[in-house]
Amino acid sequence: MSNKHRAGSSQLEFVAGNGLIDRRALLGTGIALAGALGTGAGSVTGAAAEPLKDGPWSLEVGTAIAPYQTPSPFEKNVVRTVDNPNNEPRNSRARTPHHLLKGIITPNGLHFTICHGGVPNIDPEQHRLVIHGLVREPLEFTLDDLERYPMVSRVGFVECGGNSAPLFSNVPLQANVQALHGLASCSEWTGVLLSTLLEETGIDPKAKWMIAEGADSPHLSRSVPLAKGLDDAMIAMYQNGERIQPGQGYPMRLWLPGYEGNMNVKFLRRIMLTEQPAMTYYESRTYAQILPNGKSYRFYFLQEVKSFISRPSPGLTLKEPGIYEITGVAYSGTGRIAKVMISADGGKSWGQAALQEPVLPKAFTRFRMPWRWDGSPAVLQSRAFDEAGNVQPTRADFVAARGETSKPPSVLGFPSQHFNAITSWAVDANGEVRHVYA
Amino acid sequence: MSNKHRAGSSQLEFVAGNGLIDRRALLGTGIALAGALGTGAGSVTGAAAEPLKDGPWSLEVGTAIAPYQTPSPFEKNVVRTVDNPNNEPRNSRARTPHHLLKGIITPNGLHFTICHGGVPNIDPEQHRLVIHGLVREPLEFTLDDLERYPMVSRVGFVECGGNSAPLFSNVPLQANVQALHGLASCSEWTGVLLSTLLEETGIDPKAKWMIAEGADSPHLSRSVPLAKGLDDAMIAMYQNGERIQPGQGYPMRLWLPGYEGNMNVKFLRRIMLTEQPAMTYYESRTYAQILPNGKSYRFYFLQEVKSFISRPSPGLTLKEPGIYEITGVAYSGTGRIAKVMISADGGKSWGQAALQEPVLPKAFTRFRMPWRWDGSPAVLQSRAFDEAGNVQPTRADFVAARGETSKPPSVLGFPSQHFNAITSWAVDANGEVRHVYA
Repeated sequence: MSNKHRAGSSQLEFVAGNGLIDRRALLGTGIALAGALGTGAGSVTGAAAEPLKDGPWSLEVGTAIAPYQTPSPFEKNVVRTVDNPNNEPRNSRARTPHHLLKGIITPNGLHFTICHGGVPNIDPEQHRLVIHGLVREPLEFTLDDLERYPMVSRVGFVECGGNSAPLFSNVPLQANVQALHGLASCSEWTGVLLSTLLEETGIDPKAKWMIAEGADSPHLSRSVPLAKGLDDAMIAMYQNGERIQPGQGYPMRLWLPGYEGNMNVKFLRRIMLTEQPAMTYYESRTYAQILPNGKSYRFYFLQEVKSFISRPSPGLTLKEPGIYEITGVAYSGTGRIAKVMISADGGKSWGQAALQEPVLPKAFTRFRMPWRWDGSPAVLQSRAFDEAGNVQPTRADFVAARGETSKPPSVLGFPSQHFNAITSWAVDANGEVRHVYA
Repeated sequence: MSNKHRAGSSQLEFVAGNGLIDRRALLGTGIALAGALGTGAGSVTGAAAEPLKDGPWSLEVGTAIAPYQTPSPFEKNVVRTVDNPNNEPRNSRARTPHHLLKGIITPNGLHFTICHGGVPNIDPEQHRLVIHGLVREPLEFTLDDLERYPMVSRVGFVECGGNSAPLFSNVPLQANVQALHGLASCSEWTGVLLSTLLEETGIDPKAKWMIAEGADSPHLSRSVPLAKGLDDAMIAMYQNGERIQPGQGYPMRLWLPGYEGNMNVKFLRRIMLTEQPAMTYYESRTYAQILPNGKSYRFYFLQEVKSFISRPSPGLTLKEPGIYEITGVAYSGTGRIAKVMISADGGKSWGQAALQEPVLPKAFTRFRMPWRWDGSPAVLQSRAFDEAGNVQPTRADFVAARGETSKPPSVLGFPSQHFNAITSWAVDANGEVRHVYA
């Protein structure tokens, strides 16, 4: 088919250079992406001149319904990329395929994960959560106990502190959005606020920190300011309705909305209140890199305001000039996204994207902007602003403060933490998309 | 463990009879569900006297990460119940296990489905959507075409018109919440508004209805008022971020927020605009039952205001007197839920439940209420009110208008459509929960 037969674009209203379109003015102008049916198809009798083609699925009975449903076999390539498939004795990462997803919820099958000693298979009947240290009364909670406390649900993102690390490279590494930004996902989490449990244990006034520890074999532990524990920290037990998945910390994780991923300790088994941070391995070495000024970037928890375009993006080639939707996600560990600006000319001009409601604090916000690609080279960028007034930096400004490197990402010490600058996608005359610095 | 050692409840503030508690006043009173640790555990050195027990998962490396993650093996019973596992030549249903879920999102693996000819395996490259009939220009859309149109996302429920049909029985059938109310689920749907596509085809002023037809072998078709198609109807292609699942209509379905499930035609392949409804098999027979007054209950589309308690519920036995959280979901095809009232004494007194934000129109709203069960019999009920002023009816009022039956649900003609009255759960002195009429 593809009998593209109407122009329409003469009536378009542009909001910025190189084809960015006013969304409200787009409709009714004739987007002209669909194919016309053959002669006579417009008959008010309702009979299409080209009869509907029956596939085999239209003529045969389908398969039985499964108790736990999985995606269509035709979606078999919509999976996480796993960087340690043979489970060698090192970290394992699985990245979310943002270029193939829409909306703000990441389906549970595709939520990113990083495990430091494989995925443990924890028996929830045997698992306990202990809260102890500088408390009035140390307590131990079973899952059944926690089910009886007042619960809360909240949609929010989790992002690895090392997400987007390839963008520290002094040359733009050629990879897709899954490889570059796939260590961030967003779910509806349900559980018990940690503050509810600390009401039960009581708090010694000397307590200023809490140490959270996981039950899996690496026993990853991190120090968290007690103020965060009393603010919005959650003992999360459900993810998008069902019990949290093994890669997200089954049967429970600490969720610290807006704080870097590894602090949201998975497989959580204890929280100890203390006067001082514990200076654990993970906070004093793995997640505390050296800045250009020689100081250690330690105890910097917040995932700052950020966005990236998921479509178009590398690997999703534009097949012809015409109308496309530019879309992606924006988020900030501080709160809500206030606006997202889009450029199609490498930052020379900007138009404001539509934000999909509901816009929730510390959650993915889906943005959209219609674009008419005229077939010539273009550079697409998104820039997010949060309600606290924080602005996603340009890459040039960001690396001036945080450094860049010529080393490959596999080298120890590669600056890798908290990259949140603008990402740029170049579209060439063939419609191919690649990662550039602009 | 289970060394329950504090009473606390003397300070509770009750909001209604039989133990319903003011949520805001609950905290700080000592809910006392957790076990105390042994002597010395309260030491400010932070060392628990009972050392944390290491399970095997604490001592061994876990398994490799899978590209598409699935729930823990310990959650193997958290599945849909399938009523036609051998795929015999009849309808197949799979019901959502609400009693085991929390939050408002139904995970994709557990979304309910009804298929009339099994689950088809449709090749998305070959699938087409045709819009024809009373249009200016009939058009045919591929999935690639649709990807380029402006999209929208919206969280909302789908409910089978026959959900809760067992409650038409003149005796309370003993079944759990999955069997009684499992034909309703809620997702974040993403796709193209039908109104956007009708801007492209144009509309003949004579058009008042549209006929939607599926591509699977039964070719289920339904007539929908065109006004709904121009309001909020969506050609949905994504469900909780990923492509919609086979049971929800892969590669696309019609989604009519708030309208009965079967009208949300799955595997959608065409929409024909017409002057009159088509009086299809499904709308003139299957989904048009006879009312007590002899009239046919035909073209009644709206899923009215409704709620049910998912926990406690049959099968989830309360193991001892004490504090519990009463929780469930409320929803209305009209718009937002305004409030949910809870009774623990069979409707004699009511307390207002907390509604979890965000409260979204035509979507599940999670409600919660703390409750102190004193160990004596209780009858739990929830009653929802929507923003348009609609009130969930009592069962007595409902069956006076809509009828009840002594026939089993399998008998043809059993009144089965649009049941939305109050559900009652009786808790006996042993903590067992069963379905009653109260």
